[in-house]
Amino acid sequence: MGAMAAPAEHRAQYRAGLAVPTSGAAPGFTQANLVVLPRDWAWDMLLFAQRNPQPVPVLEVTDPGSPGTTLAPGADLRTYLPRYRVWRDGELVDEPTDVLDVWRDDLVAFLVGCSFSFETALLDAGVPIRNVEQGRNVSMYRTSVPCRPAGRLSGPLVVSMRPVPASLVATAVAVTARMPQVHGAPVHVGAPEALGIADLAAPDHGDAVDMEPGDVPVFWACGVTPQAAVLASRPPLAITHAPGHMFVTDVPDSAYRLP
Amino acid sequence: MGAMAAPAEHRAQYRAGLAVPTSGAAPGFTQANLVVLPRDWAWDMLLFAQRNPQPVPVLEVTDPGSPGTTLAPGADLRTYLPRYRVWRDGELVDEPTDVLDVWRDDLVAFLVGCSFSFETALLDAGVPIRNVEQGRNVSMYRTSVPCRPAGRLSGPLVVSMRPVPASLVATAVAVTARMPQVHGAPVHVGAPEALGIADLAAPDHGDAVDMEPGDVPVFWACGVTPQAAVLASRPPLAITHAPGHMFVTDVPDSAYRLP
Repeated sequence: MGAMAAPAEHRAQYRAGLAVPTSGAAPGFTQANLVVLPRDWAWDMLLFAQRNPQPVPVLEVTDPGSPGTTLAPGADLRTYLPRYRVWRDGELVDEPTDVLDVWRDDLVAFLVGCSFSFETALLDAGVPIRNVEQGRNVSMYRTSVPCRPAGRLSGPLVVSMRPVPASLVATAVAVTARMPQVHGAPVHVGAPEALGIADLAAPDHGDAVDMEPGDVPVFWACGVTPQAAVLASRPPLAITHAPGHMFVTDVPDSAYRLP
Repeated sequence: MGAMAAPAEHRAQYRAGLAVPTSGAAPGFTQANLVVLPRDWAWDMLLFAQRNPQPVPVLEVTDPGSPGTTLAPGADLRTYLPRYRVWRDGELVDEPTDVLDVWRDDLVAFLVGCSFSFETALLDAGVPIRNVEQGRNVSMYRTSVPCRPAGRLSGPLVVSMRPVPASLVATAVAVTARMPQVHGAPVHVGAPEALGIADLAAPDHGDAVDMEPGDVPVFWACGVTPQAAVLASRPPLAITHAPGHMFVTDVPDSAYRLP
């Protein structure tokens, strides 16, 4: 089985019940955050994304009830992710490996870009990824910066942080600026206190990552932002991927890199 | 009055009744296409934009009934454009200089990026703009390429064409690729027949523009696309800007240029 078949092979395993994080699966192919909402809430979400494009870069929106996506023709969004979360009135009620039994004809799925997609580009440009070197998840923080509200949705900007050697900060900015559909350029470089982050060693999500001497903390908008806003607004039903258990698409990361 | 005040000064004149095209007004500041629809149709439009980001780069969506916009604080979208078009069931019924009398509390306004915003960047990079040199409007064509449908909206891709010297095509691509919110990189270079364009000298909108020896026709996605799709679907009410009579914002074109 060639490298190009890898995403479909991974998805088939997840469909069969394999419930593992997707980190490192099908390198070079885009992984996406999943947020599913009733049609009645979809306008708020799409408007929230339009108003907050860095944290919520929408790659695809499905038609109501349709479980298919152009990002992976033939895949079924109800079964091809390794693990889901089901939320009712903002409360987590289940973490199943498929959502066939909760699916409804009025559900709309949003697939949202993920910063995993620019990590390959950073490595190619010589920028080390400390959390990968240390075998840890990326550090994520809720900030004191509010997103622009949209309808019933509001909430804080959530950021991911990667320590970058000071001499490579400009490179990291230039590389990721060319990938606006997967969060784009950093929203902030240095000075975590200006984002309301008191202690880099105590992230709100993910793992703490050690800084090396001469590293500067660089902050990118994070795909957890829409999930935080959606859940705070307590829609009657929402389905998301479980943290780290993303949707593996057939789209190469390079498709989201501007020329 | 300094250069930074120019957009507000122009808008004040349009509000007072001056009904002239905005070409050349407040150079360096972004001008936007306007499409206003009832809330019931807004989801279709925002989804159409998400699925067709090159022809429909949405810069701003207002809350239902609100005539204000963050792109020009204090401006009123019902009066600050030089001329409007009012459409009922897809038929043009009026071309007023304000739309106060047709405004409703359920109307949502979309401000859509315009390729005028990258013309300054092209000139700065040494790429001539032939239609400006010739004192003509840009050439626009309906193509045989369908947009991705969204809900009730579908229609063909409309493109603008600029003749570019062959030695500068790569420069024109690189410069505009960095401005995805104002249509971005060309969708097509050369070979108009592949877009279903039989005769470059007979554009569907705008003026015919003469090619100079060694020029190649370069095609960008055009902001007329959403208007064509919206009108083909015959919503009960729609308001747009009149052709060439755009909304002049306070946002510098450079804000839509990636680093």
